[in-house]
Amino acid sequence: MNRILVVIITFLSISIYAQNDEQTLKNIYKQSLTNGQSYAWLDYLSNTIGGRLSGSQNAALAVKYTKNELEKLGLDKVWLQPVMVPKWVRGTKEMAYFETELGIKKVNICALGGSVATPNGGTKAKVLEVATFEDLAGLGEAKVKGKIVFINRALQADLINTFEAYGGCSSERYSGASVAAKYGAVGTIVRSLSSKQDDYPHTGSMGYGDLPVSQRIPSAAISTNDAVALSEALKDNPNLEFYFEQSCQQFDDVLSHNVIGEITGSEFPNEYMIVGGHLDSWDLGDGSHDDGAGVVQSIEVLRLLKESGIKPKRSIRVVLFMNEENGLRGGRKYAEVAAEKGENHIFALESDSGGFTPRGFSFDCSEVNLAQIEQWRSLFKPYLIHFFEKGYSGADIGPLKNDNIVLAGLRPDSQRYFDHHHAANDTFDAVNKRELELGAATMTSLVYLFDKYGVNQVKNIPQIKD
Amino acid sequence: MNRILVVIITFLSISIYAQNDEQTLKNIYKQSLTNGQSYAWLDYLSNTIGGRLSGSQNAALAVKYTKNELEKLGLDKVWLQPVMVPKWVRGTKEMAYFETELGIKKVNICALGGSVATPNGGTKAKVLEVATFEDLAGLGEAKVKGKIVFINRALQADLINTFEAYGGCSSERYSGASVAAKYGAVGTIVRSLSSKQDDYPHTGSMGYGDLPVSQRIPSAAISTNDAVALSEALKDNPNLEFYFEQSCQQFDDVLSHNVIGEITGSEFPNEYMIVGGHLDSWDLGDGSHDDGAGVVQSIEVLRLLKESGIKPKRSIRVVLFMNEENGLRGGRKYAEVAAEKGENHIFALESDSGGFTPRGFSFDCSEVNLAQIEQWRSLFKPYLIHFFEKGYSGADIGPLKNDNIVLAGLRPDSQRYFDHHHAANDTFDAVNKRELELGAATMTSLVYLFDKYGVNQVKNIPQIKD
Repeated sequence: MNRILVVIITFLSISIYAQNDEQTLKNIYKQSLTNGQSYAWLDYLSNTIGGRLSGSQNAALAVKYTKNELEKLGLDKVWLQPVMVPKWVRGTKEMAYFETELGIKKVNICALGGSVATPNGGTKAKVLEVATFEDLAGLGEAKVKGKIVFINRALQADLINTFEAYGGCSSERYSGASVAAKYGAVGTIVRSLSSKQDDYPHTGSMGYGDLPVSQRIPSAAISTNDAVALSEALKDNPNLEFYFEQSCQQFDDVLSHNVIGEITGSEFPNEYMIVGGHLDSWDLGDGSHDDGAGVVQSIEVLRLLKESGIKPKRSIRVVLFMNEENGLRGGRKYAEVAAEKGENHIFALESDSGGFTPRGFSFDCSEVNLAQIEQWRSLFKPYLIHFFEKGYSGADIGPLKNDNIVLAGLRPDSQRYFDHHHAANDTFDAVNKRELELGAATMTSLVYLFDKYGVNQVKNIPQIKD
Repeated sequence: MNRILVVIITFLSISIYAQNDEQTLKNIYKQSLTNGQSYAWLDYLSNTIGGRLSGSQNAALAVKYTKNELEKLGLDKVWLQPVMVPKWVRGTKEMAYFETELGIKKVNICALGGSVATPNGGTKAKVLEVATFEDLAGLGEAKVKGKIVFINRALQADLINTFEAYGGCSSERYSGASVAAKYGAVGTIVRSLSSKQDDYPHTGSMGYGDLPVSQRIPSAAISTNDAVALSEALKDNPNLEFYFEQSCQQFDDVLSHNVIGEITGSEFPNEYMIVGGHLDSWDLGDGSHDDGAGVVQSIEVLRLLKESGIKPKRSIRVVLFMNEENGLRGGRKYAEVAAEKGENHIFALESDSGGFTPRGFSFDCSEVNLAQIEQWRSLFKPYLIHFFEKGYSGADIGPLKNDNIVLAGLRPDSQRYFDHHHAANDTFDAVNKRELELGAATMTSLVYLFDKYGVNQVKNIPQIKD
């Protein structure tokens, strides 16, 4: 850090928080924990509506429901922002097995989102197990051609942050089929990106890049238990055959919406602060953690501000983004419209890491603003919020990035997230009410502080490269 | 803090940790997360043995199993420490209902541990709802006599630490019956000490104090959902009748054991450091969180030390205490024997707050030793361990307390603990493998550091009253 910046940060550090901020945070947490609405909203979204894949009827129902709930809150404005989204449909439940000397072993798979179907009658072939793209390249077309490529790459268990472990394997899921197809594979089976050994296959998006339609091969995820079983069976018999069948289909884009509500600022109505999560989810579970939790927490932020008698100086918006999972169309559309209108967005907070006990936030912002946040650390201590680090903030708010905005991501405890992520067990019963409510209160507290003190503009201040 | 102490602490602060401690902690966490045994031990303890109430056959099986597992670890010594424990048996499943104009409403109750049975044919009476002992005293004998006292005191939801909320209600559970009996009540029904609205009744210990046997009245816990339903029904009809039946029984004390294993210290074999949890549990669930988790984590501490190639300077013992739940006989016996033998215990760590993501430790020790611990804070940061506070350390190690010992309690995230505590849903599936393993690694790291650097002796150093 250079000396000029140290001086500036020290100067900024004088603007510490006021005594009554402690009381305000206490009120926010109390309101969320004793009279919160987030859990009831999630109950409806998960148990009455269910999984909300982009373009589905459930996604449309979720738009209607959340718009209606926002209207009940008495905000200054509530509206729908149109956005065209991809529509991919899973079709009939997938089926798969492999053959051993003992007979047929059925396994649990699911098509990856965006995959093509298997041909009529399914796909049956010998299996080539690899862990990485390097393995695949090393084997080359001669060994890959005509085979099903089985990418068996487990999440690295000794990484404390499970998102880091997930990130280490996600390109294999996303691009496995397009890479394997180039070597002549007839399908890919990818080990589920799960932290747990169980029978749930975990879906997620994949893409074919520039691969011509005629060369696209079907791609599915296999449960971690079955990945282990298949790998063991391949050691006994490298020539065993694997069969899978899936009937998923990509349709034309359809019209959907981001759902937006606003409390208009009393002093600086043209400074926008947003808080959001994504309304769409995968189709296997009910999307409670990913990202029903973020949706209801974001709505709760505006409710908690109102209930706590806070009248924001700046315009605070809740944005429920459509199509984070397989397109990010909602996030891109929101930023595009904001740019067209010349709206000055100074802050964006995303909750899309599950409804678990909040630990803090990651911040994608300047060092100057990070120093500002550091001043508030002790305000959060009674709530065991301790994590304030530079880092990735979230997919949906990413398109808003510029030199002045503060992008923030809620960071809940990550240990259980990938047990449920994109799988049939991402369900309401896996969300703890208090953990969800603590997250909403933590988000509200940060929004309150940034609204009250504003965001330090860093124009003309030397930037730090990190 | 007085000046002399500040100087001393500053001086002590020079003995900071070494560079290779970072690597040692990394190895410990990696070993626990990639090759840990704690989860498999818990699986056996929970799913093969099950609930382990003191004096039961399962408790004896748990003694046998854990002794055997300790022997497999190649420790220097493994032994059983005899201890007489109370034997209380629940008997036939309890039954309860109340009568409304709409008919009979069945409710979920369970006898509190230590309660007497209802008389033959059960107990049926009108109900008096109170929240506190003060309410009860205010009503007096005229209004209480012949009634069932319903103590409907909910955990305070806005307390962030759920143990604090639990502590605020636990005397009503423990002493409700003895207090109500003095006013002539015929039974007590206590709202379950749960953070969740559901149908599980939560048991736990109760006692009659000096109440003569002839005056003892039966006491049961009712599920939170049914507590709300009963309270609502009483508003409609204050004269409704409640019926309950339980056949629990107290037997003579029986012989049981603490299970102990030791790695003898290479330099200071007469300085003892212990780590432990309690082997007994309540009978409704399988005791996975309370305290199967603490048991397997404690065993894992010794295994991780060995696997990480650490040769302790001091003697490290794992102590699996018997009878924490309804007597604390194991904890008292261990301290009694240690005193008889003149063993110098310098450190004791207890894990008895569930197998959830570890957040840090509470310490019951001198300011001097707290300052020593503070020096290690940054070593724990990569593992998101941030909580190092003065506070209650645990029931089983409490009897070892003196001016020099460091008593420490693992502090996992507390949000879900009281959803499961003492109820039928305290089961293996509610424990996350990674969370359990992170706890074991965190405990091992603290033991490693105290073994390496020792405990600062505070004789002759001015003490601070806190």
